[in-house]
Amino acid sequence: MKRTIRATVAYDGTDFAGWQIQDQQRTVQGVFEEALERIHGHRVRITAAGRTDAGVHALGQVVGFGTELESLTPEVLPRALNAFLPKDVRVLDANVVTAEFDARRSALLRVYRYQLLPGLQLPHLRRYTLWMRRSPSLSVLNRMAATIVGEHDFTTFAAAGSDGTSAVRRVEQAGFFTEGSLIVFRITATSFLWKMVRSLVGTMLGLEADPGSDLLESEARMSKLLGDRSREKVGRTAPAWGLFLERVLYERELSSSVVLYGNGDSAREAGFPSR
Amino acid sequence: MKRTIRATVAYDGTDFAGWQIQDQQRTVQGVFEEALERIHGHRVRITAAGRTDAGVHALGQVVGFGTELESLTPEVLPRALNAFLPKDVRVLDANVVTAEFDARRSALLRVYRYQLLPGLQLPHLRRYTLWMRRSPSLSVLNRMAATIVGEHDFTTFAAAGSDGTSAVRRVEQAGFFTEGSLIVFRITATSFLWKMVRSLVGTMLGLEADPGSDLLESEARMSKLLGDRSREKVGRTAPAWGLFLERVLYERELSSSVVLYGNGDSAREAGFPSR
Repeated sequence: MKRTIRATVAYDGTDFAGWQIQDQQRTVQGVFEEALERIHGHRVRITAAGRTDAGVHALGQVVGFGTELESLTPEVLPRALNAFLPKDVRVLDANVVTAEFDARRSALLRVYRYQLLPGLQLPHLRRYTLWMRRSPSLSVLNRMAATIVGEHDFTTFAAAGSDGTSAVRRVEQAGFFTEGSLIVFRITATSFLWKMVRSLVGTMLGLEADPGSDLLESEARMSKLLGDRSREKVGRTAPAWGLFLERVLYERELSSSVVLYGNGDSAREAGFPSR
Repeated sequence: MKRTIRATVAYDGTDFAGWQIQDQQRTVQGVFEEALERIHGHRVRITAAGRTDAGVHALGQVVGFGTELESLTPEVLPRALNAFLPKDVRVLDANVVTAEFDARRSALLRVYRYQLLPGLQLPHLRRYTLWMRRSPSLSVLNRMAATIVGEHDFTTFAAAGSDGTSAVRRVEQAGFFTEGSLIVFRITATSFLWKMVRSLVGTMLGLEADPGSDLLESEARMSKLLGDRSREKVGRTAPAWGLFLERVLYERELSSSVVLYGNGDSAREAGFPSR
């Protein structure tokens, strides 16, 4: 009997041309489907909650697929798959779910984090943080982040090349906090436009760094950019390597309010990394 | 006039055959002397506080060298050198010191950290942490760590191939603590024997994991191993990639007692990363 599997997957996006399969490119979906093929003897198609761009990392990507192999229980699945996956992709856990499960369409909330490294330029963090010579003001950044919470048309922060469908998204939570020597921006929404998180981060960092802007003015400028629905005056897009897909939430998990309103401890309690 | 420079250097040891120059190998000393040669037009010899092994990282290696270039002030030096260094080596700061300064012989204390990742196997941390499926007991580990503090003959934990000189070293501080999702072992001593930190970590993790040992017995076994001065019953050497040379202290810095007795905040206060 065919069962539907839901797996949580982490990867280092550095050496991948993104999630989605492309000809002649090393992609996460590609190496994942190859590993499944080696176990099954035939191609197994998978779906994922978020199609991360080239260079973007994941701590809690969610993948769904069907399997007829009785022996591939949730208990053995992570170890079995990890034996065939390259070291920059790891299956963290697996569950059997109902046949209706679709990793992408069933997802209700996606949590992304963007990691900043202010101060010392540490080589072992260079692939996973955006280094900044100066430490930005958390209070200024958080005033700006607050303006994007709620339902808004995010056209301003959608990359050129996005399709013509609605740019309205509902941001449940958005904020900056320190974590050891890092500053982390965490944002939770139903879904995101293409390059939206990196555009938001790049713009907020640009406004914060402008010596002509105080706290209230930065907030007002961010709010105006959002309202303008125009990409013309938007800031630079922050590089891919600071971004992580941290977690994806499905219906049965929404009773835990921790991610919607949490401060970082929530992720730790759930077994997710705080860094 | 020739000035003596002291520079703090961080590196990702993954792609280096260690600190010390070797023929046909990529070494940190090698790329550093090449960068200095490109600035000076001639070879410049450097000394370092710790000759880290292949794969070992540094957050605060200290390097000394002489320069006749008036333009190479401590202010411009980090940026000038970083322009010629590969991305896995960064100069963090530089100072002019007296001609007597010798990065190796003047060093009074060296601080190393070993990073463990218990639980989820996160790919972006794979080069900088030793992953452990199970979370070890901090109290058991710290009982064992306490037995090595003070002046001891560390023959048990010296790699075969160490020269015949005295194996007596004075460990000022040694302990395990949590840092976000990591467990960190930090050890401070005047100097270390070859592979001593990795041998200590490997042995303590092995004793902690032994189901036949309780807290007091683990401590007693560690103490006996140290007293035996024999490598025969010692545990495995922990892999290089979890180890960082965190900091080196020189005479004028010893008035700050933070590293000797600190809990991690000290390193942060000094501008050093807490992770």
